[in-house]
Amino acid sequence: MSSEIDKILDGCINKVVLIKLKNHTTIRGNLQAFDQHMNLVLTEVEDITEKEVKNLNKIILRGDNILIVSPHEK
Amino acid sequence: MSSEIDKILDGCINKVVLIKLKNHTTIRGNLQAFDQHMNLVLTEVEDITEKEVKNLNKIILRGDNILIVSPHEK
Amino acid sequence: MSSEIDKILDGCINKVVLIKLKNHTTIRGNLQAFDQHMNLVLTEVEDITEKEVKNLNKIILRGDNILIVSPHEK
Amino acid sequence: MSSEIDKILDGCINKVVLIKLKNHTTIRGNLQAFDQHMNLVLTEVEDITEKEVKNLNKIILRGDNILIVSPHEK
Amino acid sequence: MSSEIDKILDGCINKVVLIKLKNHTTIRGNLQAFDQHMNLVLTEVEDITEKEVKNLNKIILRGDNILIVSPHEK
Amino acid sequence: MSSEIDKILDGCINKVVLIKLKNHTTIRGNLQAFDQHMNLVLTEVEDITEKEVKNLNKIILRGDNILIVSPHEK
Amino acid sequence: MSSEIDKILDGCINKVVLIKLKNHTTIRGNLQAFDQHMNLVLTEVEDITEKEVKNLNKIILRGDNILIVSPHEK
Repeated sequence: MSSEIDKILDGCINKVVLIKLKNHTTIRGNLQAFDQHMNLVLTEVEDITEKEVKNLNKIILRGDNILIVSPHEK
Repeated sequence: MSSEIDKILDGCINKVVLIKLKNHTTIRGNLQAFDQHMNLVLTEVEDITEKEVKNLNKIILRGDNILIVSPHEK
Repeated sequence: MSSEIDKILDGCINKVVLIKLKNHTTIRGNLQAFDQHMNLVLTEVEDITEKEVKNLNKIILRGDNILIVSPHEK
Repeated sequence: MSSEIDKILDGCINKVVLIKLKNHTTIRGNLQAFDQHMNLVLTEVEDITEKEVKNLNKIILRGDNILIVSPHEK
Repeated sequence: MSSEIDKILDGCINKVVLIKLKNHTTIRGNLQAFDQHMNLVLTEVEDITEKEVKNLNKIILRGDNILIVSPHEK
Repeated sequence: MSSEIDKILDGCINKVVLIKLKNHTTIRGNLQAFDQHMNLVLTEVEDITEKEVKNLNKIILRGDNILIVSPHEK
Repeated sequence: MSSEIDKILDGCINKVVLIKLKNHTTIRGNLQAFDQHMNLVLTEVEDITEKEVKNLNKIILRGDNILIVSPHEK
């Protein structure tokens, strides 16, 4: 990824990000690490696709499932 | 990407672009950065697929979801 | 792409091309640039899939959506 | 592609080939050029999927759509 | 994969991980090895997608099927 | 491909192979050549998916359509 | 593939493995060879997806169809 996109993901480290997946799932978690394939390590993950939030704790998410990553701002 | 296509995306930096995705979603946002995979960083993003516009704020969009990117001209 | 295919796309620069996409859309536009992934830059683009033509103006089309590119001859 | 497969495609240059696509379309055309991705340039192209033949003239066909290429022998 | 993501997978060696696949299957197993494609070697594997758990013993899982890998904490 | 798999395909040259495709088609033909993408050149090809066999003569089969290749033994 | 995963597949040579494919087929066979794409050569292959076992004898299985490979233990 370009250093520009790296920089933005770097700025999200230890912050909450919202992730929409290609399979229509939406998850929210605290970004711990990422690599050049957009594989992400997230903690305190919640699947918020439906009203009933499901806790997933810590995950490694394969980058090829991702549609968008969004810094979460309240 | 060819320097020609880079140049055109470069010309869209800080401007509004319209993006059609393979999943039939249409979004509009201000282009901040891109890389050689067509991963895009966008701000002030709106999902305008349906009449009711949804605000997405700032996002990183994975390039492999993209169908077309279009400079937005009123 | 082979220099042969490059040459043919080169010969279409500033000319109208017809493009059929994998998603069954047909578009027509003026070819401005292309790269080795068959990403195309097109101007005066029209979606002619249905009778009612939709204007798309200038677009960058990701090459992996393409089925065929055809020089448009009347 | 191996020089063996190159040689066979080379032998089809300026000859009619039959092409079955992954999307169940069958086309027939005169092979003008090919590259290492199996992108093909064809002239006098006809879509013969259905009884009613559709003329497509000259096309560049993206190789990743191809199922089989067959030298056309009457 | 980045050394960061390698480090997290390394920390899961000989521990139970939960894996959600793109095909909606959920499996649980003891991580023995992994590579740069996220291919995983797992032992004591159970398919826990449905209430009735199915034992799969030792498997090599191709990485391109993976949605998420999660360290399993009770 | 590993030299081991190359060796086995080499041993099938000028012999009949059975090929199952990802699209549920089964074809049978005489293997003439192959490359590192598993692109195959076959002669005397027959589509034997259904009871009514269809003759395809000589074809180049793109490797990414293949499920399995099997030496045909009566 | 990592030498670790290579080692495990190496340990399966001349032994029976169970393979689940992405297309929901399950086959069982004797592993003869493999390469870095997880292409496998198998002998005495049986399709055991349904109750009625189908014999496939010797096959080359393209690695991109694989979900899991499992050493078969009775």
